[in-house]
Amino acid sequence: MRLRRKPWLDAALANFTADVLVRQPEQHAGAWRELLAVSGPLYVELGCGKGRFLAQMADRYRSVGFLGLESQGGAIYYAARKIADARLSNARAVWANVADIVSFFTPGEVDRLYINFCDPWPKRRHAKRRLTHPAFLARYAQVLRSGGELHFKTDSEQLFEFSLNAFCDSGLKLRHISLDLHGRGLTGDGDEVRTEYEEKFIARGQKIYRCEVIFP
Amino acid sequence: MRLRRKPWLDAALANFTADVLVRQPEQHAGAWRELLAVSGPLYVELGCGKGRFLAQMADRYRSVGFLGLESQGGAIYYAARKIADARLSNARAVWANVADIVSFFTPGEVDRLYINFCDPWPKRRHAKRRLTHPAFLARYAQVLRSGGELHFKTDSEQLFEFSLNAFCDSGLKLRHISLDLHGRGLTGDGDEVRTEYEEKFIARGQKIYRCEVIFP
Repeated sequence: MRLRRKPWLDAALANFTADVLVRQPEQHAGAWRELLAVSGPLYVELGCGKGRFLAQMADRYRSVGFLGLESQGGAIYYAARKIADARLSNARAVWANVADIVSFFTPGEVDRLYINFCDPWPKRRHAKRRLTHPAFLARYAQVLRSGGELHFKTDSEQLFEFSLNAFCDSGLKLRHISLDLHGRGLTGDGDEVRTEYEEKFIARGQKIYRCEVIFP
Repeated sequence: MRLRRKPWLDAALANFTADVLVRQPEQHAGAWRELLAVSGPLYVELGCGKGRFLAQMADRYRSVGFLGLESQGGAIYYAARKIADARLSNARAVWANVADIVSFFTPGEVDRLYINFCDPWPKRRHAKRRLTHPAFLARYAQVLRSGGELHFKTDSEQLFEFSLNAFCDSGLKLRHISLDLHGRGLTGDGDEVRTEYEEKFIARGQKIYRCEVIFP
């Protein structure tokens, strides 16, 4: 998600307290469930954008801990805003890069990852930046527990094709593959919560691709 | 493939000799390589239709044994015709049902299966007739050698989605998944040989889906 520079943004971001916006996630590695005061699993959205999916999921599943990673301040401001406004004590917006994920969690700490409409980086020379590139998958394998899941949604046919091959080549198991999510019925938890992007794509009649990936 | 009943057909089919058209494939189980006089692998197309893919592949790869299974006499007549005309000693048209495949081969006798543009059977109550249904996959596992492959092409998005899930749910490995084969480059052996159906779909601008499945 790219947003214009907003002059008020730095001050606004500085005003968020630590129970809404986390700036140094490596300090909480191994202690996220305690921080979020949840007994259930820990779910992490990679690139949460303005946080609509994150906030709706956290509101719906109160016993689950939710973290939304996002590197762009102009996007995460809105995610933090939503968490603060809805008093979602089981959620945090995390201002950080997905590439650094292994330092944010102890091995096996995360139960599920969500990737919703990430940047498809269509040029071949940018393939390594795609969040489903095998180099990223290897990092996810470190933080996910055995049997942990990645739930992946995109509107990009090309990214979905790339991702399916990346998952298979990395020896991961696939489940509930959908080539037209809203055309042929929903299949998994969280499908009913739509991101901002998703609403736009559906309105334009574009297909949404989705699958679940099981880590060994 | 559905074709009108042709009155001359029965007589024409009866005229094909056993070195072109096989009527009782169970008699050759375990002895196909000898019959075809090939030293290389044995590839079987499930539903070969009028045999264009079969004949072109057999002509191109002379050391490979090729069998084309087809239940419809009005289609297999043309497949047998092509084999006879091109004197393809390494190929046979096999007039039989795919459902009976386990009786045609000894366990592990087949190296590769091809399914090209099979009937998608779009109605849910007909799902069991789809050639990629798990019940069929279990039969293929019996005749394929360990590490044997299924190369699958279709123009039906819905059938491809169903098939990907069937492959994954059956614990099979996937490779070279393509959601737009001719839009983004060819990936495997035989891609360059197009079936009659494929030419039509490409001419209409329809997408071709393809993947390779590896059996354990």
